[in-house]
Amino acid sequence: MPQPDFLPFIHKLASASGEEILPFFRNHVQAENKASGNAFDPVTEGDRAGEVVMRDMITKAYPEHGIIGEEFGISNPDSDYIWVLDPIDGTRSFIAGVPTWGTLVGLLHKGKPVAGMMAQAFTGERFYGDGHSAFSKNNYGTKPLKTRECTSLGHATLFTTDPRMFKGREREAYLSIENQVQLARFSADCYAYCMVAGGFADLVIETELKPHDIVALIPIIEGAGGIISSWTGGPATEGGNIIAAGDKRIHEEALKLFA
Amino acid sequence: MPQPDFLPFIHKLASASGEEILPFFRNHVQAENKASGNAFDPVTEGDRAGEVVMRDMITKAYPEHGIIGEEFGISNPDSDYIWVLDPIDGTRSFIAGVPTWGTLVGLLHKGKPVAGMMAQAFTGERFYGDGHSAFSKNNYGTKPLKTRECTSLGHATLFTTDPRMFKGREREAYLSIENQVQLARFSADCYAYCMVAGGFADLVIETELKPHDIVALIPIIEGAGGIISSWTGGPATEGGNIIAAGDKRIHEEALKLFA
Repeated sequence: MPQPDFLPFIHKLASASGEEILPFFRNHVQAENKASGNAFDPVTEGDRAGEVVMRDMITKAYPEHGIIGEEFGISNPDSDYIWVLDPIDGTRSFIAGVPTWGTLVGLLHKGKPVAGMMAQAFTGERFYGDGHSAFSKNNYGTKPLKTRECTSLGHATLFTTDPRMFKGREREAYLSIENQVQLARFSADCYAYCMVAGGFADLVIETELKPHDIVALIPIIEGAGGIISSWTGGPATEGGNIIAAGDKRIHEEALKLFA
Repeated sequence: MPQPDFLPFIHKLASASGEEILPFFRNHVQAENKASGNAFDPVTEGDRAGEVVMRDMITKAYPEHGIIGEEFGISNPDSDYIWVLDPIDGTRSFIAGVPTWGTLVGLLHKGKPVAGMMAQAFTGERFYGDGHSAFSKNNYGTKPLKTRECTSLGHATLFTTDPRMFKGREREAYLSIENQVQLARFSADCYAYCMVAGGFADLVIETELKPHDIVALIPIIEGAGGIISSWTGGPATEGGNIIAAGDKRIHEEALKLFA
């Protein structure tokens, strides 16, 4: 069934959240720690302000829709349409001043991702897709996103947010891939998936993701011709261990190493 | 002795090199490999075009000045003034589509860095300094750069370009710091030093740098109130093992771990 076109509304959500978040970027904002013990899971006023404005807009425009947000949880969980929001994906980059964070807006219809956007408010970049096509929009114009061919891990550019997150057997599998690829880059969070969608990189491997970290990115990767799944080949919508690739051949090659 | 004001000319160099480099960014440009064996040291047409235009401009404006450039070597090495150029610092980020690369323009007078700029052509950001003051300029305006206080490694945000570069005893010292800091971020190259200068991060630790990777950044870090040296506390101008900090207290604390 064709979906209603939610894209203009998603652009409005991105603009409104960007206006709330941007004043906190590089403004010596104090991050709070959501984690306990020695762990560090920062959250800022920017995260909260960005999510509040998006939730308000969705509730007014589509009162029957559900919302899952990183900071303020779930509402209307039984709705056919569920908005999945991460106001600042990459809060660690955000607090360190680096513009590789993004605002993630995803939309599930009966559990399936049907639209998604990554908006980078500081650089003015937006990456968005609906599973069938995907685009990037920035100060230089709008372009279709298209993944590139990559026939083997030895030619691949790999992204992972933090190689220290992989433990035990997962770490061995991750390192066997890291050691094979031509280039490995770190600390890029949501930006990494957009680079695969654009055909500038080939592979993203991550662990411990939440649905709000990934749902918005699925229609972008798939719309650009890529593939994204859990490490066992299941759907990526629940988060957890995720592998995204521009070319299904290296997706298969990498999945075997995690089998 | 006060220096002539080279800043307007440095802005012109940054604009001209940015115009040459930007068409190659995210344009599926093929990187060549400068390294032998299994190593990967990419260089693109963008690197060469960016350096050529800057060398031409310097030779025309200041024919008696020397130039050290990453791609085309040294000219007039005995001049009092030596320009130190890296057209694309962070070529790995460049070829992966991530805008944390930058064009570095440094100026030595009798061996001492007296002016430097990091220009990010895609985002329109410039970070520059003369050892006494430093500024950032972007689409949102111009601001002075000022490092922040950080009294101990436990509160610090650390950047390093690639933690896999440290070997043996150096790796142990690096890891003892990485394990103490609150936040470690990777893959930022020249961008990392600018984040320390702006007071968004506290520490950069790197190894195997060349003079063209670091000379331009010294007057920015120092102009913002920070400190930069080799791991033994010597001058940073020759590259090698580098440590930059916003607060001299954690610079001292880190130096002890490398002693």
